[in-house]
Amino acid sequence: MAITLGPNQYGKAEVRLVTVDRSTPVHEIRDLTVSTSLRGDLAATHLHGDNAGVLATDTQKNTVYAFAKESPVGEIEDFALRLGRRFVRGNITGARILIDEHAWQRIPVDGKPHEHSFSRAGDEKRTTAVTVDGDRAWVVSGLRDLVVLKSTGSEFHGFPRDEYTTLPETDDRILATAVTARWRYQGSGIDWANSFGEIRRLMLETFATLHSYSLQQTLYAMGEAVLRERPEVAEIRLSLPNKHHFLVDLTPFGLTNDNEVFYAADRPYGLIEGTVIRDDAEDAGLAWHTLPAF
Amino acid sequence: MAITLGPNQYGKAEVRLVTVDRSTPVHEIRDLTVSTSLRGDLAATHLHGDNAGVLATDTQKNTVYAFAKESPVGEIEDFALRLGRRFVRGNITGARILIDEHAWQRIPVDGKPHEHSFSRAGDEKRTTAVTVDGDRAWVVSGLRDLVVLKSTGSEFHGFPRDEYTTLPETDDRILATAVTARWRYQGSGIDWANSFGEIRRLMLETFATLHSYSLQQTLYAMGEAVLRERPEVAEIRLSLPNKHHFLVDLTPFGLTNDNEVFYAADRPYGLIEGTVIRDDAEDAGLAWHTLPAF
Amino acid sequence: MAITLGPNQYGKAEVRLVTVDRSTPVHEIRDLTVSTSLRGDLAATHLHGDNAGVLATDTQKNTVYAFAKESPVGEIEDFALRLGRRFVRGNITGARILIDEHAWQRIPVDGKPHEHSFSRAGDEKRTTAVTVDGDRAWVVSGLRDLVVLKSTGSEFHGFPRDEYTTLPETDDRILATAVTARWRYQGSGIDWANSFGEIRRLMLETFATLHSYSLQQTLYAMGEAVLRERPEVAEIRLSLPNKHHFLVDLTPFGLTNDNEVFYAADRPYGLIEGTVIRDDAEDAGLAWHTLPAF
Amino acid sequence: MAITLGPNQYGKAEVRLVTVDRSTPVHEIRDLTVSTSLRGDLAATHLHGDNAGVLATDTQKNTVYAFAKESPVGEIEDFALRLGRRFVRGNITGARILIDEHAWQRIPVDGKPHEHSFSRAGDEKRTTAVTVDGDRAWVVSGLRDLVVLKSTGSEFHGFPRDEYTTLPETDDRILATAVTARWRYQGSGIDWANSFGEIRRLMLETFATLHSYSLQQTLYAMGEAVLRERPEVAEIRLSLPNKHHFLVDLTPFGLTNDNEVFYAADRPYGLIEGTVIRDDAEDAGLAWHTLPAF
Repeated sequence: MAITLGPNQYGKAEVRLVTVDRSTPVHEIRDLTVSTSLRGDLAATHLHGDNAGVLATDTQKNTVYAFAKESPVGEIEDFALRLGRRFVRGNITGARILIDEHAWQRIPVDGKPHEHSFSRAGDEKRTTAVTVDGDRAWVVSGLRDLVVLKSTGSEFHGFPRDEYTTLPETDDRILATAVTARWRYQGSGIDWANSFGEIRRLMLETFATLHSYSLQQTLYAMGEAVLRERPEVAEIRLSLPNKHHFLVDLTPFGLTNDNEVFYAADRPYGLIEGTVIRDDAEDAGLAWHTLPAF
Repeated sequence: MAITLGPNQYGKAEVRLVTVDRSTPVHEIRDLTVSTSLRGDLAATHLHGDNAGVLATDTQKNTVYAFAKESPVGEIEDFALRLGRRFVRGNITGARILIDEHAWQRIPVDGKPHEHSFSRAGDEKRTTAVTVDGDRAWVVSGLRDLVVLKSTGSEFHGFPRDEYTTLPETDDRILATAVTARWRYQGSGIDWANSFGEIRRLMLETFATLHSYSLQQTLYAMGEAVLRERPEVAEIRLSLPNKHHFLVDLTPFGLTNDNEVFYAADRPYGLIEGTVIRDDAEDAGLAWHTLPAF
Repeated sequence: MAITLGPNQYGKAEVRLVTVDRSTPVHEIRDLTVSTSLRGDLAATHLHGDNAGVLATDTQKNTVYAFAKESPVGEIEDFALRLGRRFVRGNITGARILIDEHAWQRIPVDGKPHEHSFSRAGDEKRTTAVTVDGDRAWVVSGLRDLVVLKSTGSEFHGFPRDEYTTLPETDDRILATAVTARWRYQGSGIDWANSFGEIRRLMLETFATLHSYSLQQTLYAMGEAVLRERPEVAEIRLSLPNKHHFLVDLTPFGLTNDNEVFYAADRPYGLIEGTVIRDDAEDAGLAWHTLPAF
Repeated sequence: MAITLGPNQYGKAEVRLVTVDRSTPVHEIRDLTVSTSLRGDLAATHLHGDNAGVLATDTQKNTVYAFAKESPVGEIEDFALRLGRRFVRGNITGARILIDEHAWQRIPVDGKPHEHSFSRAGDEKRTTAVTVDGDRAWVVSGLRDLVVLKSTGSEFHGFPRDEYTTLPETDDRILATAVTARWRYQGSGIDWANSFGEIRRLMLETFATLHSYSLQQTLYAMGEAVLRERPEVAEIRLSLPNKHHFLVDLTPFGLTNDNEVFYAADRPYGLIEGTVIRDDAEDAGLAWHTLPAF
């Protein structure tokens, strides 16, 4: 019997980077949270504390900041690719770069957007997860914390009833979720910003317009709409918490609750996770490696 | 020497209420978090566990839900007043109702707002704190988590230097904060929604346009703009964390950082709190009682 | 009509300070979060952006770190007094220092406590809030996040029933809360550490042993026990969320739930807040100024 | 080109369960957070909203509560196995059950542990992740939020220096982390509680006593100590954030900081993740499926 080192990685998590493009009086700001992870031959430090192959996580952080100055950050996918490719050298054979982008909007003054004053545009993040392995690279982009709700157009019935089932069937319920989506890109020459915007729009429109018989059905339809319209997407994974809104029982007070008054619960919550994929998708390679799976 | 009961209150905190107005196919939703606190002669339960005067917090919660059905919720100030006045009876001589409103916007489909599908409009909350004492009532409304940033137009210098001062003076820095504001209304017949919108606009425009020499100056100017334009506001209190964005030192990498690359810090943060008040303001009475003070 | 500056304060919030006493091989560590607030004549910066009287919050942070080196931190009350008195000079006439202390315990190795390796001892914090005004000073210490639960010995009945009351009476329920306590010291020559330990013990023992008919009764008894035994405490304020544990209805499954299976709810929660005070207490002065009140 | 459903799962997340064993006056309490996920043939609901194969997440929650009454919860591994095996039937071919256990300790009264009053024992959780697939099952247990710190006995030097490296080498630093560990069990007849206790002890003792040249070395040594002593563990995965404690530069104040005064940073943080495995380990099968990987 011998004990050995298995898969491992290390890096710097949650580097907070804000950049200001001051090339004109109309400033542009970018607000990113960057996490880097490196992989490769790292046995020496694990077994002997020999750090000759350990690019310090502090250096990784510095690299993020220096790269943000050396040339424009650009889209998060491009910035992540630049960073990932930088780190792969010597004993480091792979890198994964995660970036969350936080959105800002200009403050309107007298109806016109201000040149250098901004307010935060919600809690939703645009995300990317780039994996570099040797000469290859994969891009999985997405979004999270996109909270949506339908006040009607959602039913749930026909589910099996066993001895522990008490849930009544319903033909009208609130359906609410916080969308986490990750999609794997294929091909090349992708316009990341445009693709993101269109994918987000397709998911939102599908959520809004599909008459839903289950959150699973909504999930699949959202993914299918994206794959149908966007050939650059090989595959999409969605994680959708069912943010329950329970009808309050008002009968003790002599009141009828016609789907008007709800209690928004915190826990527990349903959690629906699924993948929609095209059958001729490019091979996934390491694209999803170390990302949440189901 | 005797030991006695001093000031006290009790209630139900963070009742999550979502309502759907289904009177037309174009649904309206409201998303509130309601906290109630009651005050009065409550010695019997504290000293002897005699609960004859303790309206159960569960009943307070039920009242919130029932009231939301019995007539339309309306503006949060009106709903809080209805609730507060309900609770004051018998041994209960005072009530404080806190409401946070979470905003939603309609999902656009083919460029048109959807009738019953919504997405969360950020993390900012509209708030009210209503205090009822016997026949009297006070309304203190506000907002929180309004995150704003200026990429220029902010200086900080001329501060005293003692033996522990190392901060360099600057004539160009990022200024960022998360606004918590509470303003006390006076007079009657107030259009709560309109007033809220205008106060928010005045604060944002002032933040954007004032060339700032300190966050204190920005705070005062924001409050002054509100008082100057809105006679229904007697007084405003602002709590402004200075969300530091530190210039990254890129000189070790042979790079010049012309206010372009910043590290957004979490802790510690400056915290600037202040009141702007008109000298002929109505008496505050119990308006601020139990609210954060400075 | 004129608009003026009302009450205000500013400072540095949440300075994270960890110190190591290495005077012997048996290291001692202290882990504090320190917040400072200064008050005084600060009109110039608010009205004109003139910062000549604004000791930078960065300097306040530096002072915390320098003071931690210049002499031993000692008890948090003493450290807060040192800091507060330092800041009161010139236009600064008052200071409030808040400190949270995070506890660590030694890791046992072969049954013996290790000399320099520690693990975090829970989430509970020991706190102090020191107010200095000119030559005077007040100390309000406390604790928070002390989570306790009784699995029996708690009843709740006899409360009034109105048209919105549905809560059944119970003679056996789980009672759980997260204690936030603040007590105001009086007199001098207080052994802060010993006093803290004894007050904490008295509160815990009272929570454990009192057969409770309401959380209010428990609150009062906890405070009374402290005042009865600790003459150095003038007054104590307790804020006790009622962390509801609801009995799960198992009757649909043909099962009887004899107070055995509970659902621990997040929101809403009851919130019981009260003061216990001795009638011959020293005057409170500014001790509670800007602390949460009820 | 066709679009199809890929991997998916669904369930109820974060069911909060507290049980009281009242069989003697000395009550025992258990405090668990349970999440269930089911897998199998779920195409009908995704594609057509046909829920005949969708055991409602509400039913899954009910099952957790009913099972907690039908027989004693026991160790979390056994409870998770009972639940997982229950759900695998019909179209449901696999289940994953995650349980976090929150620890409580008895309140001491007059030096003796109280029969039915408890306080929360910190924030650390004991965890299990049980995967059932048809007739097979795998158990991966662990812990998280075990926060540890060494005030000396940690060095970091010999790392490569590139054009972005500024970190000085050090032969004495604070090393602090919050341990997340997951270990895969093999064999049968395991005493879960004893094994957990011993594994935790081995990790703590190794952290305490190893003179560390990198957090990677500490990680490997912790895992190796477990595998060396505990034959029931096939493999262990550790995720260790490097909770940086930066030495404060006191030289501007004429003070020398001999590793005594530190700033505890929030973000960014290093993140070291690795696996230690025995070469004759049983096949992992689906044990790690959908758990965080690296």
